[in-house]
Amino acid sequence: MPVANVTTIQDVARHAEVSASTVSNVLNGRGDRMRPETRERVQAAIAALQFRPSKLAQQLKTGQTPLLGLLVPSMANPMYGFIAREVESCAQERFGLRLLIGSTYRDAAKEAAFFEDMLAHGVRRVIVISSLAEERHLESAVERGMAVMSYDRRATPGQPSAVGHVTPDNFEAGRLATAHLVAHGHRRLAFVTVAGMTMSRRDKMAGFHAAATAAGLAGSAKVLDGGPLDEYGDSVIAEVGRAMGLQLAADPERPTGLVALNDLMALGLMAGLREGGVAVPRQVSVVGIDGLFLAALSNPGLTHVQLPIREMAQAMVEAIAGEGAPPPEQIFRQVRLVERASVAAPPQ
Amino acid sequence: MPVANVTTIQDVARHAEVSASTVSNVLNGRGDRMRPETRERVQAAIAALQFRPSKLAQQLKTGQTPLLGLLVPSMANPMYGFIAREVESCAQERFGLRLLIGSTYRDAAKEAAFFEDMLAHGVRRVIVISSLAEERHLESAVERGMAVMSYDRRATPGQPSAVGHVTPDNFEAGRLATAHLVAHGHRRLAFVTVAGMTMSRRDKMAGFHAAATAAGLAGSAKVLDGGPLDEYGDSVIAEVGRAMGLQLAADPERPTGLVALNDLMALGLMAGLREGGVAVPRQVSVVGIDGLFLAALSNPGLTHVQLPIREMAQAMVEAIAGEGAPPPEQIFRQVRLVERASVAAPPQ
Repeated sequence: MPVANVTTIQDVARHAEVSASTVSNVLNGRGDRMRPETRERVQAAIAALQFRPSKLAQQLKTGQTPLLGLLVPSMANPMYGFIAREVESCAQERFGLRLLIGSTYRDAAKEAAFFEDMLAHGVRRVIVISSLAEERHLESAVERGMAVMSYDRRATPGQPSAVGHVTPDNFEAGRLATAHLVAHGHRRLAFVTVAGMTMSRRDKMAGFHAAATAAGLAGSAKVLDGGPLDEYGDSVIAEVGRAMGLQLAADPERPTGLVALNDLMALGLMAGLREGGVAVPRQVSVVGIDGLFLAALSNPGLTHVQLPIREMAQAMVEAIAGEGAPPPEQIFRQVRLVERASVAAPPQ
Repeated sequence: MPVANVTTIQDVARHAEVSASTVSNVLNGRGDRMRPETRERVQAAIAALQFRPSKLAQQLKTGQTPLLGLLVPSMANPMYGFIAREVESCAQERFGLRLLIGSTYRDAAKEAAFFEDMLAHGVRRVIVISSLAEERHLESAVERGMAVMSYDRRATPGQPSAVGHVTPDNFEAGRLATAHLVAHGHRRLAFVTVAGMTMSRRDKMAGFHAAATAAGLAGSAKVLDGGPLDEYGDSVIAEVGRAMGLQLAADPERPTGLVALNDLMALGLMAGLREGGVAVPRQVSVVGIDGLFLAALSNPGLTHVQLPIREMAQAMVEAIAGEGAPPPEQIFRQVRLVERASVAAPPQ
């Protein structure tokens, strides 16, 4: 579609038969220094041409654009859609910032390209959700003048960071989910994940192992890796879960208590187990982590650990848009178990 | 977070001890006209300060920004997350456009504010998903120099439009879903929707009535309206569906075959019916419309009408980013029924 060029200050000047600097004087409240007829002619031309002073000119002066960049692994994952919604509400309503969004599919090249574009467009504030294991590229973006918040990971211990970090207590989330299964009598436990290690996955897994160890079950607790996601990234995590569920259904030695990496994985696991003829929770119990609204719609309802998404989204926007330096690390500890119907005692 | 100012051409000039216009000459390939030592000093300063020529300056000249605006009812609805992903892939990979995204919650003031911001930021291409019933504000955006695509509605008949329209055949989607219930023997049919009439809702409903009438069931086919959505807009449509499901479960005269406005509504309906003690599909059958991947995970699997989302997303991006005027109306007729397990014969 050919895009019409927009009215410029030169068009207004031509229309009013004055110089561009006269138009600029009117726009900048210095119209009282000129003859009223001139001022009125300029104002009439502004109205006739529907001229609007460009924010781009202002941006050019400061090198900044009132946009907030948001990088998510995939917009097709409903969890990231929900976080994006909360970030957008807060950024727009409280700071007048619009959202420039991109999916990275956890690909380093895509993530780097997004940062280059943000810099070139004058976007100076970026929130990165579930970035790669390594954060040097984020530190380098800060050195080049950006404010960067990293979601769902802690600052690297012993390494000073100019990047702000907001994360739920993923260790505690993994621990809570596992302890809930232990409390129902499960002794064969598994943490079900996908290929690729992020700090948040490592933390959840550490919580899983801590709870299993505390219950004397370290020997039988295992991690099941569903393998890599394809180019769709996190949107197919449910499909990986479903394949794992089918595989577990066929295994007579399967664990009876499953902690899923996240809710979408848990919903996929339940579908796969069901298709494989295994009943949840009668034969296998499943716990998710996230707090997706879809968990309440599933059958059986999914028991999961609810993360404080809205609070974290607001904290990120406030840190990046408000005054003062962002805290290098904010860990949100208000994770809590929401019981529904996907957990019961293991079969005898 | 205070945002550092970015290196400007003036900083480079100061560092190299030359004038800004000398730096500009080097940047614009006119460095051969100056002494080699000067050119090298400028190049060293550019490297030392990590200076990057701003795309903003270029944008200021043309009044355009290489961004695509995307307005959705709510990013928290997984369907819009999926469409956004498809729009982003195509816009980024084929046209180098980034996505500026906003949720409107179908609020006229929010929609208008987004357009004002897009104009001020130099964004000249906007895709609007499921806009309000009335499109005058879109036509007026085109008059002000924007290219606008409207998704999920047809052009208003008999009214020439400068806005491009891409929509699935919503009439056929409603008709197919209803005919599927009729084919299974249902004679008490309902279309379940929410408050507020969009063109796409009207078309689905017309398809529902057409199929009911063709089966001689016009008298018993009814529309059930679940009432208004709150400020979260489409993300709570599942909750409205659940409330409707509970209400229907308590009604001995309830219809046995339900067509839901969309998949999220259908998932909510199934949860509400189940909570109310009514079995799907043994007592009530449910059909959704959209093609959400979540439909395959539900229990029972949701039978739905699949819309050609990727094809439509690509058509919108091509029309708005490519050459030539956008077709005023493109109706995608490849809608098809995907059978799963939520439809059976009605109880005797």
